[in-house]
Amino acid sequence: MTKNVLILPGDGIGPEITAEAVKVLKKLMVTDGLDIAMEEDLVGGAAYDVHGVPLTDATMDKAHKADAVLLGAVGGYKWESLDISVRPEKGLLRLRKEMQLFANLRPAVLFPQLASASTLKPEVVAGLDILIVRELTGGIYFGQPRGVRILENGERQGYNTYVYSESEVKRIAHVAFQAAMKRNKKLTSVDKANVLEVTEMWREIIDEVAPEYPEVEVKHMYVDNAAMQLVLNPKQFDVMVTGNMFGDILSDEASMLTGSIGMLASASLDANNKGMYEPSHGSAPDIAGQNKANPLATILSAAMMLRYSLGREDLAVKIETAISKVLDQGLRTGDIMEEGMQKVTCSEMGDAVVAAL
Amino acid sequence: MTKNVLILPGDGIGPEITAEAVKVLKKLMVTDGLDIAMEEDLVGGAAYDVHGVPLTDATMDKAHKADAVLLGAVGGYKWESLDISVRPEKGLLRLRKEMQLFANLRPAVLFPQLASASTLKPEVVAGLDILIVRELTGGIYFGQPRGVRILENGERQGYNTYVYSESEVKRIAHVAFQAAMKRNKKLTSVDKANVLEVTEMWREIIDEVAPEYPEVEVKHMYVDNAAMQLVLNPKQFDVMVTGNMFGDILSDEASMLTGSIGMLASASLDANNKGMYEPSHGSAPDIAGQNKANPLATILSAAMMLRYSLGREDLAVKIETAISKVLDQGLRTGDIMEEGMQKVTCSEMGDAVVAAL
Ligand SMILES: CC(C)[C@H](C(=O)O)[C@@H](O)C(=O)O
Ligand SMILES: CC(C)[C@H](C(=O)O)[C@@H](O)C(=O)O
Repeated sequence: MTKNVLILPGDGIGPEITAEAVKVLKKLMVTDGLDIAMEEDLVGGAAYDVHGVPLTDATMDKAHKADAVLLGAVGGYKWESLDISVRPEKGLLRLRKEMQLFANLRPAVLFPQLASASTLKPEVVAGLDILIVRELTGGIYFGQPRGVRILENGERQGYNTYVYSESEVKRIAHVAFQAAMKRNKKLTSVDKANVLEVTEMWREIIDEVAPEYPEVEVKHMYVDNAAMQLVLNPKQFDVMVTGNMFGDILSDEASMLTGSIGMLASASLDANNKGMYEPSHGSAPDIAGQNKANPLATILSAAMMLRYSLGREDLAVKIETAISKVLDQGLRTGDIMEEGMQKVTCSEMGDAVVAAL
Repeated sequence: MTKNVLILPGDGIGPEITAEAVKVLKKLMVTDGLDIAMEEDLVGGAAYDVHGVPLTDATMDKAHKADAVLLGAVGGYKWESLDISVRPEKGLLRLRKEMQLFANLRPAVLFPQLASASTLKPEVVAGLDILIVRELTGGIYFGQPRGVRILENGERQGYNTYVYSESEVKRIAHVAFQAAMKRNKKLTSVDKANVLEVTEMWREIIDEVAPEYPEVEVKHMYVDNAAMQLVLNPKQFDVMVTGNMFGDILSDEASMLTGSIGMLASASLDANNKGMYEPSHGSAPDIAGQNKANPLATILSAAMMLRYSLGREDLAVKIETAISKVLDQGLRTGDIMEEGMQKVTCSEMGDAVVAAL
């Protein structure tokens, strides 16, 4: 049965990088019987410019009906002065929330071919392989009440609410424990339980779920310490689980440790493995439209999509192998360029992956 | 006129490291006419064990009456299962809040003698000198309402409130701009204005204050990007200003970049430069009582105290010079030990600083 994939290129470099992923998928449709139908639509600033909203109801509807969504990136300087309610990011947040994509998987992996691209010393990051499991539909990102009010003395006061319910923490805990079971069976849960009540409850619930996974070694860590430990000794981590806001910060920090943020994919899944797939990096408006961006994170996101949502593990592996080959050939976009390697454009990189499939 | 200094050693390695700072201050009382009276009291778990609260009203009163407070560190495994309302950390938070120490200054500086102690490549961190200005008495640390409630369906729900008023943001903005004026005139304000309304207001207010400091170049950065940029290119930063929670995370990350977190001091100041001074590191319960800890961050905190609250810039410089000498001599505690250097204990390090004064 044909599966439906919604492509949402978004803003900045989004259209360039998703175009390369689409190239790869199209090739697999021809060569490997990949049975998908792709449709493209607008999200983010691109949608705002046409429709006045960062995601239309019609696009939301298509996302609900699709089997998977592949997204480029949203946002950029152009829309930074818009009201927060119509910013490009709101389109992304609405997709996550309404599709109930509560489980955001963000691998931070060092590609052996890029061992020296990191700003960290090679011995500190060699072999790095962390999976960050970030709760994505709750926490302070969506908590109510929120806004800016005027106090009696005439001052403005801004406020947001950091909130989690027991069931929200439990379901992300299970995702994280199960991921740990498939890996090195070490889970670090990150919170600020010494200051924030909501994360004190988070910690309790992790401890309540833990006995169901007796083989997994569980550790709790304060978020400030986690931010430090990622720099001091990142290889101590296997799977990390945390809330939406801390996950946003720590996953970006962790991905940058690898020196290959242009290489890192992510999956956002619901309870039935329906998902949205995006590169971990942003829309990079400064290099948009210049055919310079690294499309590999998006192509790897398409591989994750084949694995988790489209039941084609074989093709996921095929893409990953092709990317490894291309790196072995010495091809590099600007972000991962090193002496002695061959610099290529975004579309050349895409073509090379297609050729290597 | 004799100034009063309250010494609060706290937990873990706190007593060891403050003892060395006290040694240094005592020496200066004898040799340099430093006119202070020191009194010691309990805070954190040490206070809880004796009084059942992490800070007694009597101690709070002494802090109010003192001209400055020198604090070691609070917290440890021993008290982690206590209710959040009586945890060691609550003692520290109460001191900050009631003394109105809204301006937390956290330098992240690479000591040239420790250039290779960082996990980052030397060229990435050589000369690193960032000042993080963290708002310390507001934000989600103190926001109401907060707690855990039972929902109608019987589930627990935890919640905290992230809140800032205009005047709170303005006063920390002025501290940060003034600090930038004394340094390289570059200020990066960190927020999550694309998602959180409270930080959208934060960003607006920074922009409103900026015209009063036309020489300072202001940049806004999302917190996830800041966490990344600190790893990718930390030397782009001069002064960073942010709220309580983001400041907690980013200052720990930044201090670890230097490889010398055992060397980093901090000051928490009120509107009149009355302050509390602490090392940036924690209570390190795993090495407590072993005479192994690095006392230099605490001794440097005492130097900051002499500078900001006790009007003795000359003695602050004297301490800093002595520490530089001791590092030049090759003396190192375990945390900063490198090949070819001489390993010393906590108290030996303190003695060496006293001798070098
Ligand atoms: C664009 C933004 C809303 C988003 C987030 O904060 O979640 C991004 O930073 C991410 O991590 O996917
Ligand atoms: C001990 C803890 C309450 C404290 C904080 O979170 O502020 C510490 O991490 C710090 O940064 O001083």
